[in-house]
Amino acid sequence: MNAQRSRHGTRSLILESALELLCASGFSGITLGSLAKRVGMSKSGLFAHFKSIEQVHLAVAVYAYELFQENVVTPALGLDKGLSQLRETVSRWLEWTSRSCPPGGTPLVAAFFEFDDKDGPIRAVLLHQEVHWRGQLTRIVQETITCGSFREDLDVPQFVSALCGISYSFHVSLRFLREASSSQVAGRLVDAIIASAMKRSKGN
Amino acid sequence: MNAQRSRHGTRSLILESALELLCASGFSGITLGSLAKRVGMSKSGLFAHFKSIEQVHLAVAVYAYELFQENVVTPALGLDKGLSQLRETVSRWLEWTSRSCPPGGTPLVAAFFEFDDKDGPIRAVLLHQEVHWRGQLTRIVQETITCGSFREDLDVPQFVSALCGISYSFHVSLRFLREASSSQVAGRLVDAIIASAMKRSKGN
Repeated sequence: MNAQRSRHGTRSLILESALELLCASGFSGITLGSLAKRVGMSKSGLFAHFKSIEQVHLAVAVYAYELFQENVVTPALGLDKGLSQLRETVSRWLEWTSRSCPPGGTPLVAAFFEFDDKDGPIRAVLLHQEVHWRGQLTRIVQETITCGSFREDLDVPQFVSALCGISYSFHVSLRFLREASSSQVAGRLVDAIIASAMKRSKGN
Repeated sequence: MNAQRSRHGTRSLILESALELLCASGFSGITLGSLAKRVGMSKSGLFAHFKSIEQVHLAVAVYAYELFQENVVTPALGLDKGLSQLRETVSRWLEWTSRSCPPGGTPLVAAFFEFDDKDGPIRAVLLHQEVHWRGQLTRIVQETITCGSFREDLDVPQFVSALCGISYSFHVSLRFLREASSSQVAGRLVDAIIASAMKRSKGN
């Protein structure tokens, strides 16, 4: 039992270190050498927990997405369906994007650009996660229509794509350009697309 | 003279190869080893043209940005200032994003995520380029206000940020998610923010 617990603890330590490397240098920065050095164990020690570096890559992708879900999606599920849940989810999404990495930030978004033209199992996992997350956003937007806040003819895929664009633009503005106005601009963009989707603004 | 021309030709060949590596694996994928192999020359041969791999990184960043300017910004400069030039620039931007990489695509946008938390000369060059490009977009949007097409109280930084968000979202949708509707959705988003900025829609 203790051995199992210790084994679990070491695995967590390896994943934490792998996430740090992911944040710093993307998946290509997680090598057996860099990871062994970061964790402070030998390469053969790593092999006791992960059979290959690809297994580490897959496990850290899953781990980073779990953190995103726990911090962004899950806390908003307790709110009323519709606009409240949408606003809370988007607010947490932008806040998570602005947090230092790890545990926050969006290393998986960076990986979309790292893996846009590279096929393989990591890409497949990242794609599955992003489709899942956009499905959650789509459901929340559709519920906001059902609740009567958003107009019924709203183009939901277009709305979700616009939300994603705002979050990517916020990431670049805040973390790359380091503009002081990043949060304000992103907030105003979110307010604007929500206003344009509201039922009462139809035909206005 | 012939020696100079040949030297210039080899330098171009090295830059083309570096751009291919940039598209495939980001700046971290351009190493002396990978570049020498791609060009088909020895590492010491490379040193005759570039004193270090950092010099290659800087040169390829400049080269990729020149290609972007030549294909996206410059051709639109011949059009009337205002909405025509804005529409042409944005249309060319999205078209360039959708082109295979190299010579198209947006390897420099991918690099924003690679260098968001990494300081140094490459980041400084990429930042300078992005500030320059957003300055060009800002000028075109301001001219669209001056020409009377866009309303005078338009929030220009917010508009430019929204445009950038649409292009990033288009990149992810097309190249990562590989959605068939990417271009249509991006086009509708551009139409929507242009419509919301038009003078005649004020107060509507």
